[in-house]
Amino acid sequence: MKVWKDYQEKNKDRFLAEMLDLLRIPSVSAKSEHKADMLKCAEAVKKNMLAAGADKAEVMPTNGHPVVYGEKIIDPSKPTVLVYGHYDVQPPEPLELWHSGPFDPVIKDGKVYARGSADDKGQFYMHIKALETLVKTNTMTTNIKFLIEGEEEVGSPNLGKFVAANKSLLKADVILISDSSMLSMENPSLDTGVRGLSYIEVEVTAANRDLHSGTYGGAVANPITILAKMIAGCHDENNHITIPGFYDDVVTASAEERALINKAPYNEKEYKDDLGVKELWGEKGYTTYERTGIRPTIEINGIWGGYQGEGAKTVLPSKATAKISARLVPNQSSHKMTEKLLAYFKSIAPSSVTVKAFEHHGGEPYMTPIDSKGYKAASKAVETTFGKAPIPVRGGGSIPICSILEKELGIKIIFMGFGLDNDNLHSPNEKYNIENYYKGIETIPYFHKFFAEG
Amino acid sequence: MKVWKDYQEKNKDRFLAEMLDLLRIPSVSAKSEHKADMLKCAEAVKKNMLAAGADKAEVMPTNGHPVVYGEKIIDPSKPTVLVYGHYDVQPPEPLELWHSGPFDPVIKDGKVYARGSADDKGQFYMHIKALETLVKTNTMTTNIKFLIEGEEEVGSPNLGKFVAANKSLLKADVILISDSSMLSMENPSLDTGVRGLSYIEVEVTAANRDLHSGTYGGAVANPITILAKMIAGCHDENNHITIPGFYDDVVTASAEERALINKAPYNEKEYKDDLGVKELWGEKGYTTYERTGIRPTIEINGIWGGYQGEGAKTVLPSKATAKISARLVPNQSSHKMTEKLLAYFKSIAPSSVTVKAFEHHGGEPYMTPIDSKGYKAASKAVETTFGKAPIPVRGGGSIPICSILEKELGIKIIFMGFGLDNDNLHSPNEKYNIENYYKGIETIPYFHKFFAEG
Repeated sequence: MKVWKDYQEKNKDRFLAEMLDLLRIPSVSAKSEHKADMLKCAEAVKKNMLAAGADKAEVMPTNGHPVVYGEKIIDPSKPTVLVYGHYDVQPPEPLELWHSGPFDPVIKDGKVYARGSADDKGQFYMHIKALETLVKTNTMTTNIKFLIEGEEEVGSPNLGKFVAANKSLLKADVILISDSSMLSMENPSLDTGVRGLSYIEVEVTAANRDLHSGTYGGAVANPITILAKMIAGCHDENNHITIPGFYDDVVTASAEERALINKAPYNEKEYKDDLGVKELWGEKGYTTYERTGIRPTIEINGIWGGYQGEGAKTVLPSKATAKISARLVPNQSSHKMTEKLLAYFKSIAPSSVTVKAFEHHGGEPYMTPIDSKGYKAASKAVETTFGKAPIPVRGGGSIPICSILEKELGIKIIFMGFGLDNDNLHSPNEKYNIENYYKGIETIPYFHKFFAEG
Repeated sequence: MKVWKDYQEKNKDRFLAEMLDLLRIPSVSAKSEHKADMLKCAEAVKKNMLAAGADKAEVMPTNGHPVVYGEKIIDPSKPTVLVYGHYDVQPPEPLELWHSGPFDPVIKDGKVYARGSADDKGQFYMHIKALETLVKTNTMTTNIKFLIEGEEEVGSPNLGKFVAANKSLLKADVILISDSSMLSMENPSLDTGVRGLSYIEVEVTAANRDLHSGTYGGAVANPITILAKMIAGCHDENNHITIPGFYDDVVTASAEERALINKAPYNEKEYKDDLGVKELWGEKGYTTYERTGIRPTIEINGIWGGYQGEGAKTVLPSKATAKISARLVPNQSSHKMTEKLLAYFKSIAPSSVTVKAFEHHGGEPYMTPIDSKGYKAASKAVETTFGKAPIPVRGGGSIPICSILEKELGIKIIFMGFGLDNDNLHSPNEKYNIENYYKGIETIPYFHKFFAEG
């Protein structure tokens, strides 16, 4: 609508500047040293909601980092859209690979470089600016509620309880989330689901102290070697996961669904060139989109042990540790898979070592139907501003709270992400294209309009 | 001899204090930040040689850290003993496991805790105090030369060239080294050899940047997984090394030698209890002393990749790296084995990753005959002060320069170490028992006496 476009055009520089301010707060939920930054960020989100025209906004405590709740109720009889997002970000390490400070946003070639620019500060902030647009142009057609949490990147350990305790406050007709990506600006897409997650840590201890690798080497277990054998044993030569029962509950995608997935534009050469790899790697018998969409995976997210400094040290280390996570698909249960992972690593350890394995966090896989009122409103909104109907695709990432939100609130979730796969989420030099940011702010009001009409 | 004992008894506190002063200098050869400390330590060694009565002592440059040369020539027609040692130490990391500062020596329960206390400052310093004893009691029977280097812990990359260029300066009849351990004070032993070493580093790179493990997980190689598979593939289920050609040049120990090795006192329960392990781990078909003495081994000395911080990060890392070393036995060649190791890690990499592998350093295995004049003098010296003939054993560690010293100077090496296996060499809380330090100073003069007489 012209009033929206005019309003946004007039205010675009401020819209961007405000988002950059939010990116300057190092809201790393995983690290206890950032506790004060987390609170500061929550307060900033609240202030921005009120400034955008929310009737009320509140920083609400949980057992972990607080939740920011806000709302603009125009008429209780109208449909209500609950916008979910998160103001916490992934740790920025390894810092030496960033070209600019992770919390010192830099604009280059039309992109904002900063941790959280795409995941998820830049994306949820589009909804605050969309609210402002609707309020200031007096064109609201739905009630809008915000649930912006601070623990998504650590698995939302406290949000389930919060949601259960605040069901009436959060009562809505649909949940709208911009915390995912689309194929490209030329080929917009909407995610129809997210994968689940099981995230564990495994620590292998051999001797009670580091040893001289000459004096003891060959006679005492090396925890790195043992851990490597455990990790190597997770996949067979076809990159099929070998952990007992891992695939038991996987719902096999139908031939139709696989055909649909593989209709999405995909250029393997471009994909490989972008990543700088000669060959891809994955489960035999599946395409790239199938591997990242409908198949569960196991990734080693980190490993360390022994001497990691300059030069050489002939040590036989006492300990080796790995962070390991599985992405899950319907109908795998995060809890069950975590148990299986923990059991695997504990059970295959030889008696020469001791293994401590524990869960970091998890989340269930989630699927949304494409024939719902919400999905149709999102599809129509994207088509309106992009000039092309979005392709439904399965997202590879995880938003652990999805299944809990649906269960507690009894409503469906719509994923309308404006990021791109190459935004470097969770990686150095995370970025968000300014064009995508503005396009999102332009598209969101249409979602509300079509959802109210639909 | 009584004069020695009396002199040592009168000066024992100073003998200890001087050794502690040397331990206070953080002479870590692997780290460039310690370059100035290395020079400071070399100067301190030189000063101590002169104070002990050396005719001359010099800090002599190499392409790396300098060598300290010293000598006391009583009569060129008498036998000459060349004492080799090293003033450099292993990196002290991981610092958090030290109970006191690694360069802040602490005496507890009759032990000196500090990096380098046993390996090798405390041990080569015994020879300087033995020289002082001989000079001050006017009882020298041999000429004594010192070659104390600063790069043993990084593989002595520049010493070979130095020795070749200074053959006449270093001319001697035997080389004496105290850089090894004995079984125990009750069961003294003399090493009859050291293992060789091949030390490499392997870096596996998958994508050109860290990736989101959801967006890309399952479709792009994980360098940690690949590196783990490579490491796991180094040993079969009997812990036999599977790298092609690894055992080709190994000289099989005779039944007699194996019987001799296994006659050395060994209490498996005590060995396991000391290390805090339920079971040992090693090549099937060999005993602990065989595994650490006559068999080659591969140890992973360090590994790192991906996220290693607090909490969880769902990253698919770009890189993973490992430090890997092999201990070698006669007649394996360090150069050939390094080539085999590098080739193995490069050749088994799938084309989804790129592998960089390079050599840190190496050294040849070395054996000394037990019927030589030098070995007999050492054996008799130990028997004199310990009251028990020492058991000949194969040492598990490596002194890379041994084979080069023998080749360049044309003389045999005698290992007369006074450390213990549990001295925590290369590990946190390295220590050297004060009793062993004094016992060494007491024993060394007898070596010179018996060697001159022999």
